[in-house]
Amino acid sequence: MKVGFIGLGNMGTPMAKNLAGAGHELTVWNRTASKAEPLKQQGARVAKTPADAARDAEVVVSMLADDHAAEAAVLGQDGIVSALPRNAIHVSSSTISVALSERLTKAHTDAGQGYVSAPVFGRPEAAAGKQLWVVAAGPKAQVERARPLLTALGRGLTELGERPSAANTVKLSGNFLIASMMEALSEAFALAEKCGVERAAFLDVFKSVFAKAPIFENYAGAIAKGQYTPAGFALRLGLKDVSLALEAGRAAEVPLPLASLLRDHFLTGVAQGRGDEDWSALGALAQERAGIEPKG
Amino acid sequence: MKVGFIGLGNMGTPMAKNLAGAGHELTVWNRTASKAEPLKQQGARVAKTPADAARDAEVVVSMLADDHAAEAAVLGQDGIVSALPRNAIHVSSSTISVALSERLTKAHTDAGQGYVSAPVFGRPEAAAGKQLWVVAAGPKAQVERARPLLTALGRGLTELGERPSAANTVKLSGNFLIASMMEALSEAFALAEKCGVERAAFLDVFKSVFAKAPIFENYAGAIAKGQYTPAGFALRLGLKDVSLALEAGRAAEVPLPLASLLRDHFLTGVAQGRGDEDWSALGALAQERAGIEPKG
Amino acid sequence: MKVGFIGLGNMGTPMAKNLAGAGHELTVWNRTASKAEPLKQQGARVAKTPADAARDAEVVVSMLADDHAAEAAVLGQDGIVSALPRNAIHVSSSTISVALSERLTKAHTDAGQGYVSAPVFGRPEAAAGKQLWVVAAGPKAQVERARPLLTALGRGLTELGERPSAANTVKLSGNFLIASMMEALSEAFALAEKCGVERAAFLDVFKSVFAKAPIFENYAGAIAKGQYTPAGFALRLGLKDVSLALEAGRAAEVPLPLASLLRDHFLTGVAQGRGDEDWSALGALAQERAGIEPKG
Amino acid sequence: MKVGFIGLGNMGTPMAKNLAGAGHELTVWNRTASKAEPLKQQGARVAKTPADAARDAEVVVSMLADDHAAEAAVLGQDGIVSALPRNAIHVSSSTISVALSERLTKAHTDAGQGYVSAPVFGRPEAAAGKQLWVVAAGPKAQVERARPLLTALGRGLTELGERPSAANTVKLSGNFLIASMMEALSEAFALAEKCGVERAAFLDVFKSVFAKAPIFENYAGAIAKGQYTPAGFALRLGLKDVSLALEAGRAAEVPLPLASLLRDHFLTGVAQGRGDEDWSALGALAQERAGIEPKG
Repeated sequence: MKVGFIGLGNMGTPMAKNLAGAGHELTVWNRTASKAEPLKQQGARVAKTPADAARDAEVVVSMLADDHAAEAAVLGQDGIVSALPRNAIHVSSSTISVALSERLTKAHTDAGQGYVSAPVFGRPEAAAGKQLWVVAAGPKAQVERARPLLTALGRGLTELGERPSAANTVKLSGNFLIASMMEALSEAFALAEKCGVERAAFLDVFKSVFAKAPIFENYAGAIAKGQYTPAGFALRLGLKDVSLALEAGRAAEVPLPLASLLRDHFLTGVAQGRGDEDWSALGALAQERAGIEPKG
Repeated sequence: MKVGFIGLGNMGTPMAKNLAGAGHELTVWNRTASKAEPLKQQGARVAKTPADAARDAEVVVSMLADDHAAEAAVLGQDGIVSALPRNAIHVSSSTISVALSERLTKAHTDAGQGYVSAPVFGRPEAAAGKQLWVVAAGPKAQVERARPLLTALGRGLTELGERPSAANTVKLSGNFLIASMMEALSEAFALAEKCGVERAAFLDVFKSVFAKAPIFENYAGAIAKGQYTPAGFALRLGLKDVSLALEAGRAAEVPLPLASLLRDHFLTGVAQGRGDEDWSALGALAQERAGIEPKG
Repeated sequence: MKVGFIGLGNMGTPMAKNLAGAGHELTVWNRTASKAEPLKQQGARVAKTPADAARDAEVVVSMLADDHAAEAAVLGQDGIVSALPRNAIHVSSSTISVALSERLTKAHTDAGQGYVSAPVFGRPEAAAGKQLWVVAAGPKAQVERARPLLTALGRGLTELGERPSAANTVKLSGNFLIASMMEALSEAFALAEKCGVERAAFLDVFKSVFAKAPIFENYAGAIAKGQYTPAGFALRLGLKDVSLALEAGRAAEVPLPLASLLRDHFLTGVAQGRGDEDWSALGALAQERAGIEPKG
Repeated sequence: MKVGFIGLGNMGTPMAKNLAGAGHELTVWNRTASKAEPLKQQGARVAKTPADAARDAEVVVSMLADDHAAEAAVLGQDGIVSALPRNAIHVSSSTISVALSERLTKAHTDAGQGYVSAPVFGRPEAAAGKQLWVVAAGPKAQVERARPLLTALGRGLTELGERPSAANTVKLSGNFLIASMMEALSEAFALAEKCGVERAAFLDVFKSVFAKAPIFENYAGAIAKGQYTPAGFALRLGLKDVSLALEAGRAAEVPLPLASLLRDHFLTGVAQGRGDEDWSALGALAQERAGIEPKG
């Protein structure tokens, strides 16, 4: 396929290489031109502007740092929208805002062009090793045409429906999950350390109990299903245990703000009559805060 | 070994069965006597009080619901301390407070008895299937003597040093990690749902990207090591992404209190000059809040 | 009146002096005896134990540092309960827990003694200047008999019903309000300072707009009444303004965790259909979290 | 003075009336023209566009609902910037973002026009009664020329230096203080109510102890000064009291998220060695989070 590739940073470069390696014909662009050198040596044409890279493409893939860079490359002067042929497709893999994704959708649609949002999960090493996970959303026919590229980038693909910005929501939610786990680990390590537990020992427990076991997967399934009775572990026991963690933190002088937040949510659950439901009923509380009607 | 077993609830019963199955000679006690019936049929003797179950034991294992129940069974009238032979060991598997664990340590030590704290990770099914993970702490010689029992309960064991309450800290920290992941998932599902993403699709992404991949393990390792440079993903990008999630939440009217907390911590990191460190430097912030001096 | 006074710290000493100055006959006790010297010079008898101070008293007033000290002085060996005559009254002014206040109520009642909880608002200077505000709760007849003492301590008295611990709840809630205002001011000063506003200028605005104006009083009245329509200032405007404060904080690199909490609550209000109510409908959200049925 | 007035909502109308009443010659504009009727009857000229209202003015005052409305009226087609004479001044009283205020400053400066930011504190009744408090910032000479208008709007004025956006920061910070107090009151009322305290009684305490007393003013002064020793009330006592409030909340099943946040901050203070400083050292913690060096 004739492919334009916009954005050759730590992520973009290995992604572009994988597309070239899969036999696609690449025209690449990067703001700092020198970064295009490795791709050029691999046979890619180097464009002067995003528009140049888009002009003859069937699909343009972009991988840019933030909203600012993405907006400039797509909607700015000599941007992708100005040159991409009608019916050609822009596959946007950047981690950008839902709002910008919706503006890009409109701009491309108005220009008779296709737009698929396809952010990826994984660090540069994963990109290099074709181990990214791609989440893609957009009109079905367009996702279909882009599929050979999407599958050349990583180890798997989840399709998220026809509305492109849904993929951005999921990418942002995924990074939020990672950051949450890091915060939880950060607080837990601080507590453990100040209570005299070796960091290496706590890490060993984490690896053994959590990291590869289906525990998080099981809870994710429970929350997805929204069925909180019968309780495997009652919410009021969750309140008890997180309160004990906070007491231990007070005694050892270790603030645990995430534990405080959990305590407030568990206590809200108890006050609202959910004490005997499963502790995963945190999911129901989040829905209620958001004004989502429970299913069923 | 001659083993007393105190507490035959959803967890205690399968644990006791596994000990009996491993060839140990059990005397069991439960507040509601009828629950001892299954063990009795498996050949266990049924005691009238915790003291009765402890009187002739080499090791007493207890698995009780909370501080209140544990305190009564150990320190109360006809409690374990009153009858356990000198040099015999109490292995406490209940999820209790650090403070109570320290009081039990003292009471047993004063009585010339051993005390090993050995809480377990896993639900009743895991207990039945010998799939618990045990975290044990106490004097080395005592842990050694209890080892045949500890390994008969589950699939693995992490030893956490000589101070029994360290194991309680780790158990509480583990439950805190689970609750944190559930809260994060709850908020993420609410956001995804209100943005039009099917719950099943989001669950699929979670399973593919997070649940069995080494991602959490890798970050846990980074935080344990405390090395935040060079950055794989910069803290200021973490601030960007969590801010975008909050913006999406505002637009869709989905409050994300855990994301707000993360935003404040990332912003603190940026304000304090850590914007170019890895986003796992959340670990350094938690240490500083706790007054822990950074290593190295 | 014959009065025992227990606890001669920064608060207790000026309070005791005011009682002596109002003509009451004092017997005082303090753990560190030397602190009783000023009262002795004013004519007070110095007791060896709390029991000694209580033995002949019509009323014993106590002003101690915390739960630990209060429990020891009342329920411990040679404590107040052991010696106070039947029908005499213990007026407890210490800032102690609701739970301990309820235990003290029971102990005194069981002993045929009276118990009035009467914590005070104000610092040592206010105590010295008879400017404390007293909040009292307990059986009506007992409060009546203690009234001459309660009014001798300060500038005013609010009666809070027959259940003594209610006064402790109100005292703790009051300190919580002060701490909340301090946190809000702390964050606001940090934001102002980093945005180039002189601290003195911001203080001037605070004094002029808030400190003596009826603004907080008006909002307190609105929340007490629980009437949130018609809106004077709509909740969705509250969301707008607190979001703008957070944006300003992000630009200036000033984390505002209390503002984040407010944003989440306002956004919850909007998501749950309260966007057009007055922003004081935060009061309704707090009630719902606590499972309190709205009046009406 | 010849004055243009833009925005005749609940706040703008009484403000404009006061300017007319003070003898200024008004040309008014409002998006919905019918709202200009009352001013017209008071002798004001009604303009067709913001530009019309600005064309002959010495000063244009604007009071608009949000960033969107303000941006349109100032920078949009037929906006203020397009017609205001050189050296005439735009006084912007709207509650807008710091970022927009900075863009308006630049636009007016580039056009050779003056720009003073002058948001106001007070509700419509206060506007009608000339009881607003004005916070103004901008080049000294321009503030001087606008002074007759600023003083005709309210009961007082605080000047905040030469950078206009500083006044927006202070206005947003002020609304943040109000919302914080409302949240604190909301949680305190919920706790009091569920503990059996009449709302009216708690309101009485609030009015007596806080609303008109100098307590908040005193703490604001302490935080402004940043002197936290010697302690009037030690930070570790603040931790104690807020922890007791949380315990009471747990017993009564009342979540207190603001109290949780305070607990975390007090505990951080204790862990970092500030336990014996005054509890207003919350101010120092806020500075440190923001990377502000303490004054010395």
